[in-house]
Order: sequence, then C-alpha cells, then structure tokens
Amino acid sequence: MNPNVVVRKVERAPRELVQGFLEVDTSTVHEAMGRFGFAGAHIRPVQQGARIAGSAITVLVHPGDNIMIHAAIGLLEPGDVLVVASTAPSTNALYGELMATSTVARGGVGLVTDGAIRDVDSIREMGFPVWSQHIGCQGPMKTTPGWVNTAVVLGEQAVHPGDVVCADDTGVVVVPRLQAAEVLEAARKRMAAEEVVRQRLAAGELSLDIAGLGAKLAELGVVHVDRLEDL
Amino acid sequence: MNPNVVVRKVERAPRELVQGFLEVDTSTVHEAMGRFGFAGAHIRPVQQGARIAGSAITVLVHPGDNIMIHAAIGLLEPGDVLVVASTAPSTNALYGELMATSTVARGGVGLVTDGAIRDVDSIREMGFPVWSQHIGCQGPMKTTPGWVNTAVVLGEQAVHPGDVVCADDTGVVVVPRLQAAEVLEAARKRMAAEEVVRQRLAAGELSLDIAGLGAKLAELGVVHVDRLEDL
Amino acid sequence: MNPNVVVRKVERAPRELVQGFLEVDTSTVHEAMGRFGFAGAHIRPVQQGARIAGSAITVLVHPGDNIMIHAAIGLLEPGDVLVVASTAPSTNALYGELMATSTVARGGVGLVTDGAIRDVDSIREMGFPVWSQHIGCQGPMKTTPGWVNTAVVLGEQAVHPGDVVCADDTGVVVVPRLQAAEVLEAARKRMAAEEVVRQRLAAGELSLDIAGLGAKLAELGVVHVDRLEDL
Amino acid sequence: MNPNVVVRKVERAPRELVQGFLEVDTSTVHEAMGRFGFAGAHIRPVQQGARIAGSAITVLVHPGDNIMIHAAIGLLEPGDVLVVASTAPSTNALYGELMATSTVARGGVGLVTDGAIRDVDSIREMGFPVWSQHIGCQGPMKTTPGWVNTAVVLGEQAVHPGDVVCADDTGVVVVPRLQAAEVLEAARKRMAAEEVVRQRLAAGELSLDIAGLGAKLAELGVVHVDRLEDL
Amino acid sequence: MNPNVVVRKVERAPRELVQGFLEVDTSTVHEAMGRFGFAGAHIRPVQQGARIAGSAITVLVHPGDNIMIHAAIGLLEPGDVLVVASTAPSTNALYGELMATSTVARGGVGLVTDGAIRDVDSIREMGFPVWSQHIGCQGPMKTTPGWVNTAVVLGEQAVHPGDVVCADDTGVVVVPRLQAAEVLEAARKRMAAEEVVRQRLAAGELSLDIAGLGAKLAELGVVHVDRLEDL
Amino acid sequence: MNPNVVVRKVERAPRELVQGFLEVDTSTVHEAMGRFGFAGAHIRPVQQGARIAGSAITVLVHPGDNIMIHAAIGLLEPGDVLVVASTAPSTNALYGELMATSTVARGGVGLVTDGAIRDVDSIREMGFPVWSQHIGCQGPMKTTPGWVNTAVVLGEQAVHPGDVVCADDTGVVVVPRLQAAEVLEAARKRMAAEEVVRQRLAAGELSLDIAGLGAKLAELGVVHVDRLEDL
Repeated sequence: MNPNVVVRKVERAPRELVQGFLEVDTSTVHEAMGRFGFAGAHIRPVQQGARIAGSAITVLVHPGDNIMIHAAIGLLEPGDVLVVASTAPSTNALYGELMATSTVARGGVGLVTDGAIRDVDSIREMGFPVWSQHIGCQGPMKTTPGWVNTAVVLGEQAVHPGDVVCADDTGVVVVPRLQAAEVLEAARKRMAAEEVVRQRLAAGELSLDIAGLGAKLAELGVVHVDRLEDL
Repeated sequence: MNPNVVVRKVERAPRELVQGFLEVDTSTVHEAMGRFGFAGAHIRPVQQGARIAGSAITVLVHPGDNIMIHAAIGLLEPGDVLVVASTAPSTNALYGELMATSTVARGGVGLVTDGAIRDVDSIREMGFPVWSQHIGCQGPMKTTPGWVNTAVVLGEQAVHPGDVVCADDTGVVVVPRLQAAEVLEAARKRMAAEEVVRQRLAAGELSLDIAGLGAKLAELGVVHVDRLEDL
Repeated sequence: MNPNVVVRKVERAPRELVQGFLEVDTSTVHEAMGRFGFAGAHIRPVQQGARIAGSAITVLVHPGDNIMIHAAIGLLEPGDVLVVASTAPSTNALYGELMATSTVARGGVGLVTDGAIRDVDSIREMGFPVWSQHIGCQGPMKTTPGWVNTAVVLGEQAVHPGDVVCADDTGVVVVPRLQAAEVLEAARKRMAAEEVVRQRLAAGELSLDIAGLGAKLAELGVVHVDRLEDL
Repeated sequence: MNPNVVVRKVERAPRELVQGFLEVDTSTVHEAMGRFGFAGAHIRPVQQGARIAGSAITVLVHPGDNIMIHAAIGLLEPGDVLVVASTAPSTNALYGELMATSTVARGGVGLVTDGAIRDVDSIREMGFPVWSQHIGCQGPMKTTPGWVNTAVVLGEQAVHPGDVVCADDTGVVVVPRLQAAEVLEAARKRMAAEEVVRQRLAAGELSLDIAGLGAKLAELGVVHVDRLEDL
Repeated sequence: MNPNVVVRKVERAPRELVQGFLEVDTSTVHEAMGRFGFAGAHIRPVQQGARIAGSAITVLVHPGDNIMIHAAIGLLEPGDVLVVASTAPSTNALYGELMATSTVARGGVGLVTDGAIRDVDSIREMGFPVWSQHIGCQGPMKTTPGWVNTAVVLGEQAVHPGDVVCADDTGVVVVPRLQAAEVLEAARKRMAAEEVVRQRLAAGELSLDIAGLGAKLAELGVVHVDRLEDL
Repeated sequence: MNPNVVVRKVERAPRELVQGFLEVDTSTVHEAMGRFGFAGAHIRPVQQGARIAGSAITVLVHPGDNIMIHAAIGLLEPGDVLVVASTAPSTNALYGELMATSTVARGGVGLVTDGAIRDVDSIREMGFPVWSQHIGCQGPMKTTPGWVNTAVVLGEQAVHPGDVVCADDTGVVVVPRLQAAEVLEAARKRMAAEEVVRQRLAAGELSLDIAGLGAKLAELGVVHVDRLEDL
C-alpha cells in the first residue's frame, strides 16, 4: 500500500506558458482561479523581492529526513520548482547551501516547503529563492524512504507533479497544470482591469463609488450616523 | 443590539500634537503611559525603518470580509491611520495594493491590523507602512457587514476612534486621545533623561550604579559568590 | 533551595579558540557536534548578515523582569555573549537600546534570548546583533530576583556559563566549553570537505552519485517507475 | 498616567437579571448581542459541564504576579466572577486552590483568565469552575502592582467591571451591564425559536427548506450537478 | 474557474466494508496504508471514547460561513461523515446543536473539521461524535458560496468524497475509497500480529529481542556503556 | 563528538524517598525548589486524576524515530518514569499501547514526553499515566540512533537520569536527585502551612490580612478609590 516510489516522468505545462506567470502576482493568480491555490500564510519567503513560476517536482518526506530530495534533484529540468512536503510537521532543516547549488546546476528555479532550510545566509547570497515555514540548524538524516512526484499536501494546498507553482513576497500559489492557460489569461485580464481602478483610486475616487459598494452597504442594512449616540 | 454602523464623525487630537509623536519611539510612549497601550508582539511591521503617528479610524470586520474597510477609507482625513480588527482570528488578506493606493490618495498614513494583507511587494514599493499579524494571498469577500468607528480590540489593546496610533519597528502603541498631550510630554521628558543615561553607559558606567540596582539586588536577597560551590 | 545568586567568575574558552568559530557557520558547528547544540527555530535574528561567537554569560529571569540582566552586564568581559532565558514563556521586552549601549561599552558581542527585545530600530542602527524569540514594546520590572551564571535552558538547549555561543542568520548553536577545540577542528574539516562537494555539484554532478545515495535508495526499497501507473 | 489603582465600588446588574443568564448558553447570548462578546477560542474550561453567570470584578496584572488578585478577592460580592487579564501573554499560574477557597468563601462563582491556573485537580474537586488559557505549575510573585476594577481586555474582548460574564463548555461571553436586560430577553426568544426548528430538524426536515437556504444558494450562483464532470 | 458547486452523487465504499473499520483503531489503519492518511495532531475529539467510520461528504467553506454545510446535510446518507474544511484557518464555529440534530436525523455518524464547533455541551449529551480544531461561540454567516463534494484538504490530508473517514481518541485518518478493502484487510492482519506481540511484552519480553532491535542498534553504531564516563 | 550511546547504570534516589513525592502536588514541589523544575504548560496529561513520582530514565530521540525508547524500556526498574525528549519539535507518535504494555511489565510507572503518543484510548483503559505535548496517529521509524540516559531538555527543563519526576493534573516537575530529600521535606512543610491558611480562608479571612498583602499594596503605591473618577 503506497510503496515508496520515485516517479521519473512528469507532464509539465509548456515552458512559455509557465513563464507567463512571472508577469502576474500571486494574489491575482489566486483570484483568477476563483480564490483557490494559496498554500497558507505560514509558508514565508526567506528573501525579499523574488518572484518565481515553475513546474512542480514534488517530494514527500519523513520528518527530519532528506534522502528523497536528493532523489528529486536528479529529476529536475530547467524551470522546475522543488516542492517539499512532510508527512508531519517538522522544524528540521532538510535543505541547505549544497543542495541549492545542485538545484541551480540542474536548472531548478526555487524551493517551496512546509519544513525548514538552513545556510540561509549563503542561499540568499546565491540569489536562490526559497519559501519555507521554518529556518534552523538542526540537520537531516538520510535513512527513511519517501515519495517523489506523487500528489502531496503543501500547507493548505494539494500539489501534483507538473502543477505550476507561483511565489512572491506575498506567498505561494499552486495552479493545476491543466488549468494553467485559462488561469494565466484570467489573471492578465484582472491585472489590466485593476490598472484602470488603480488610476481612479489614485486620483481620489472611492471604491464605494467605483465598485458600487455604497449601495451594497445599504442593502446589507449598515446604518450611517454622525455619532454613535445618534443610533 | 450592536447594529452594523458607520460612524462618520471622529474627534481627533490636534494635528500638531499627533505629529509630535513622530519624535518619540513606541517603547517610550508605552512607558510614558505607565506601561500601557501596546497592541502585542504578534502585530509586526511588514517593512523596516518606518515610523508613523496618526488618528485612528477603526474598522471591525467579519473574518475574510473587507467591505467595511472600503467604507472606512471614505472617512479618512489626512494624517489618519486605519485600524482594522476582526471579530475572530483570520489569515485572509483584507487589504492590498489598490486599497493602499486609495488610502494614500485620501491622506491616510498607515494601516495596523490583527489580520493579513497581500500585495506586500507593491505596498513596500509604494512606501506605505503597514503593521499586520499575517501576510497572504487568500482574498476577501464583500458581503458581511461590520462596524466603522466604534470601539475595537486590536490584539491586546482596546482602540477608540480618534485615539493616537504610534508604530515603528518595535510595534504598535495606542494612546487614548484625551491622554495624548500628557503622554507626549512625559515621553519627551523620558527621552531626554535617557539621553543622559545613555552617555554614561556608553562611557562604561553600569546601570547597577547609575540606577542603584546594586542596592536593590542586595535588598532582594541576591547572593554574590565567586563560584557556585561557594554558596 | 536554589537561592538567587550572581556567580562572578566564569571559566571561558581561550579567546583565540572562541574567535575561530567566526570562520564556520552554525549548521556546520551543529553537525560537527554530532547534531547537537541548536537552540531552536523559534529564536530568530533581528538583523540580517551578522555572525557572532562568544563566551556565555547566562541569566535566568522571572518573566517580565530584567534586574538580573543589569547584574550580568557588570560581569561582561570583551568577547562575551549575553544569554537570557526566562523561567516561563514571555513576550515582555527585557532589553533595549540603553542596555545594548552598556553591553557594547563592556565588550559584549551579542545577545541571545528566548524572550523579547525592544528599540529594535536603534539596536539595528548600532550594529549590535541580537537573536530573540519576540520583539515588542511591553516593558520590564526590576523587582524579582533571578540567577546569573548558573545553568539555564535556552529554547531547546542547556547552556552553561562559559559555553561558546555561535549565531548567524540560520540560528543559535551552543558548544560546551570543554568540547570547543574538538568541535572547531571538526567543523573546519567539514567545511573543507563540503567545498569539494560544492564544486562537483556546481558542475552538475548529483549527490545521488557523489554520496552513494542512489544505492542507499535501492537498499531502502524505493522503487523507480516512469509513471505512477507503472507501479 | 494610569496609576495603579483598586476601585472599590462596582455597579452590578440586578442579581436576578444576572442569574437569568444561567438559562441560556453562551452561543445564544453571543448571537443575541448581534454576534458580540466572545472572549476567544483559546480560553477553555478546565472542567466539563459547568455553566456560570456573574458580575465581573476585573483584574489587570503584570505577567507572573498575582498580588492584585488578592486585592480583588476582598471586593467580591456573592455572584461575582473574577476576570483576570494580563498586560502581556503569560503561562505563569496566578491562581490555585487557596485562592479558589477564598473566592468561594467570599461568594465568587467562577474565574475566567487569559493566563494560567494551578492545583487544577483540587479545583475540580471543589467544583469551582474556571476558564483559562493555560494550566501549569510555575508560580507567581507578589511584587508588581496592577489594577482592580478598571477596563481590561480579556482575550479578544473588552470587559468593564460589572459586566455580565457568561461561561459554559463552549467558552466565555461578556455582556455589557447596560445591555444585559435586552440581551437576556433576546437570548430567551432565540432559544424558544430554536426549539421549534430543532423539532423540525429532528423529524428530518432540512434547514435548506426551513430557512430558505436553498433559494439563497441559487441566488449566490451555486450550481448543482450530479457529478463534477457535468459542470 | 472552480465555480461554486454542489455535487449530488458520491460513490461510496460498500456499507459493510466501511463498518469493518470500526474494528480497527486509527493508528493501525494509518500503518496499514503505509503510514498515510493522518489528518494531523491539531484536529482533536471533543468527546472521549468515541470511534466512527463512514463515507466522506466533503464541504469546503469560506472562513466564518456555513451555508455550504447546510447544503451538504441534505445529501447525507446513513453512515456518512461530514468533512468540513476551510479555505483559510478560522476559529468561527460553523456547526452546533441544531446542525448536529439534523445530521443525526439524516443518518450522519460524525463530523470532522479543521474549523470550530459550538454548543459542545449539548452535542456531547446527544452522543454525536465530533473532531475539530477549535471550540468557540463566534457564529457563522450564510452569505458566501463554497463547494460540496469536491476534493478538499483537511488538516494535512487530501480528502475526496466517498473516502472512508476513521476517527477515534487518537485522531482522524482518511482512507481512499478504492484502497479501503485492501487497507482493512492489512489492518486486521496487523492487529492480529500485534496481539501476539502484546502477550509476549506483557509477559516481560523486550521488543529489543522480539523485533531484533538489539541487533539494529548495534548496526547503527550505538554504544552501550555502564556509565557515561566509560565512553 | 557526542556519540550515540545507551548508558546502562543510573543512580536513583531511594525508592521510599521517591514515593514520598506522591503525597505532595507538583505546584508545591516546584515552590519548594525555589520555583524551579516545571517542564512547561505545553506538556499535558492525557488522563485526569493521575499522580506519579519516579526516577527518570531519559531518552533523546530524532524526530519521528523511537528505536531508542525500545532500548530504554530494557533498562527500566520498578518505579521508573520514561522521559522522552526530541532533538527537534515533532508530532509523530513515538509511543503506543504495545510500548505501554512493555513499560508496565518492566515496572515503569509513567511516560512524560515533549513529543506525541497514540493508542490513547487503550492507554487510558490500561490506566497507564502519560503526559505529552501531542496525540496523533502518525507513526515512528526505527532507523536513527539517539541517546539513552544522558542529560536531556524536556520542554523548558533539563533532566538527568535518576532525577525524580513528579506529575499530576497540573503538569510535570523535575527534581534533581541530590536535592530530592531536601525538596520533599520543604514541600511537606509547605503543605502543612498551607492547610492552616486554607482553613482561615475558608472561614472568610482574606489573604490581604493573613499574608500582609494589604500593607504590601500600600508600599507599592497602589491607590484605593471608590470610583475611578475619584482618582
């Protein structure tokens, strides 16, 4: 039942499509999916100002053991993102400078994990972007098998191999591979529409008026008074 | 009972008085109040090096719904700070780049919230200062009414509309409007007194001597020995 | 039983030995000790890019009271690190700009604590490095006695006075004084060995091959398939 | 500014009114207030099956210090509830068997606190009901002044002396004194209305039909399909 | 993209198969799956001594809104378990006594949720078993659409409609529908095997000998000494 | 450096002395030590009403691996308590019904751990008392070596083999072996003294008078007023 396995072949979205996601921020992607795909507010960037989009190579590890990540790095193709999930919460660092060096050498563009990394100063210097739940020194073992390229749960989100992983300063969003084209188009439209709104807001107009929220408030029964005593 | 309401008029402290708080740091303000007013260590700045002081426009929202923040932005006057509290803990982002654009256009000087924001990269680029408990992509609804400019609890602190909100890299402190003048004066005095102590400490004197803490230790029964075995 | 005490004399490792730890990162030190000494992922740097190594002056405080830290500062020798632990979890800030000024004046090189600090902007400007669990305004009392230079628990780690404390962006590691020479030598060897591996990984080789992890995976019964359906 | 004070006189709601709240559960009270008053899901009962309603005697303490609770017990009148809030989070136990004995002797009917208690086995045996955030052995000091019968923040809720505090297995709800009569009446009506619904639901009817939620779903644009592929 | 939907038809495992899981505890089921399926240590029973097994009816809700749970109850068949996940963390109670009454009336055998419930005293009295992350009074809205019977993430586990949900005092485990027969058989075998071991252990034998762990320790290089100084 | 080791011989306090601690509760023991020894409010009993005292057999494990606990059970003598600490936080269950059966067979009287257990229903039925941080199904490996009977950190407390471990509904307290006699005597005296106070409190006297806390309040500058406006 659920034997430990490394799956070698992953269907990826077309490279050009994946890279299109670099034009849109994660919140917009999340909205374009119908408010889906966010991995959770506890998975934070370890650097500032990075944005990535790539195809997921997934790893499911036993807490405190990174042997499967080594196996996964061998399967990376240029443009891939390592997605490392743990079968249980863990603060053990499963990834550091050496693995980042190897990831970069194989064309990997980032790491997202609900676990921890270490060597964070070196990794920042390398410019290799990481999103993790924890940072710490406590090191990994290499003795417990896991899974590479099976479905995993990353934070609050299911991820399948080949899904498009987008990440920036706000967080990590996962787009199912087969929805990627549709989502990207919707996200681009949303950005264009927001640009118009932004200019009107910057000019001093209110969203109450632009978006009809004033009427909505009335419909919801919200009362307006000058002072609370007037209620 | 407690109907959803937007209160339009807010008594503010004089603008000059409020801006006086920009000269003093939050810890000093907190001490000057008799160790009151700190909103809690879980509300963190999303940028480094910002300091604000402004009059509170308060918003109480249902988790995951930001319609009342839209209502509140329409009430902002230059120098105001948006204070957004939730009726229950939530990591949904209720505020992003568009709302920050609108807040700035209306003269708002910052946002403090026990909830979450998104578009954090754009907001940092705009230089608009925010203190929040969370950062994340998960977006808001606009369907549940709340309250604007009523008393709220922000973290561990009650906030009333018109209170002076001070925030810097250490955290967020709330000063009741009617205590503002007295607190500012006490804070300035404290800063001046600390400057003297700082110079003496920098010259190598000890607080044990300057503040009489050596005598206090003796009074508390603390024993001094060269080695633990000497006890 | 366990009377409140300040122990004045601390055996330290030789200054040159302690400073040798500045050449090695905390994760390597932790590995060189046999995966020991990490204080926990919840104790984070308040700045980026700092690295320290120093001899521990330990303080055990009652939550929300810093009188014993004042006592400890008087015992600092150049190269020492203040280690402040609390008898129970606390977010009260027990350390700020004035104490940092005094610590620097006495030759202290850093502070590590499972509690909180304040005046974090000033402390960053001073360039005084701190690792803490919390940041906040809520201030300390000076009325409850504690202990200076007795054994304490910092996060997940026991610390004795005179132990070598190493800290960088990844975290805080504690080396028992009598193991320091042996650990430093092992850490240096490990770094040298890693440099060789790094170059091979950067050239595109895989850890699976370099470290024999491919064989290990087979031994662990991990199956390789092209697609999950092939299982 | 904010001097340490014990306020002796507290306006209470009529005893009969307060005891009326024993007929209604906390969730109903919270709904009857317009979804207000809940102190937060982190304040839990230390026993099962207790329900209390009483007038608040409020205490604001420094973390780890219980001298003000001693002062407050002297002010208890029969039917009062001790409400103990801390100026910062703390796991120090500030209340145990002896204080519970004294509270009962003075007519107190319960304790609610965002801090901790100890002697929990004895307190359960006494049948004295407590709601707290933590349980633990670490004991209190009696050296730092605080406040009795001033406004405090308990968890996510502001509490004023004399407010009606209701608590049961679900949690703690605070009713402002002057709203108590109106809230109790609304709560009783709500309970009566729920009884009717309960019987219909028990007979197999659906809330979709009883409450018109089926129509609401359609209005919200929710699609019904037999299988996901039918979308 | 991902429109709000209620899926009416769910493939369930045969009733007899599902009820077979009542003979085995959750830890054994988890082991029988190859250490899969555990929903996480943060989802706790609100009662003691209950054990359930049922087919999953899944609900994905917006934080603080329970309208979709009402929709789901209408789809329950005898033996089903309600699985309620939230798109973001939330402590709002989305389920209480009335909904439990309705669930029981429709044949539902339990609720598991990463959110909160209320009316916990009544629900315990009814004997309706619940596993949740939180308990609290703060109530729900009925205005934001979600999803019924689509794939959801419950804690650390993906759940599909029709999966077998097992829960007892240790926690919640999810078995994919198509693996259910194989898992149940493996779990029964494991229980039988454990019974033999239990008797040997009860008689004083050691697992070191029974399971050959003594040899394993030697192989792992673990040294045995009488005293630490003998190392 | 710090090789994996099992230390076979442990100095224990005399059996009669250890059992004397069954007469005193954990809070009293903690006070008798000068407010030392509490392992932290996050380590909770999994049952109600149990009290144990025993000599510590310590285990330090890698997260998610229990092979060293098997080794430790072989070293148990009647009256011993298993103390299981992890090198990093973990929710993996390392202990269940079979190990409890073996522990009881060898004379062990309880388990305290900062990790997790499973089979909690069976363990409660056996009447074997456990204090743990977590409960959950996720199971252990047996592949990573650790340490038995070396010094460990359990929660916020250092524990050495042979220390006396006391636990009840309030929590876990650790008494250094060589202090045990003195602590027990002090705890007994404290209990006797408290009995006198309890009777006076039960008769309606106040701690303000009995313990002179009224005078202390005055000395601390606490003001008494009838109403806040009188300040």
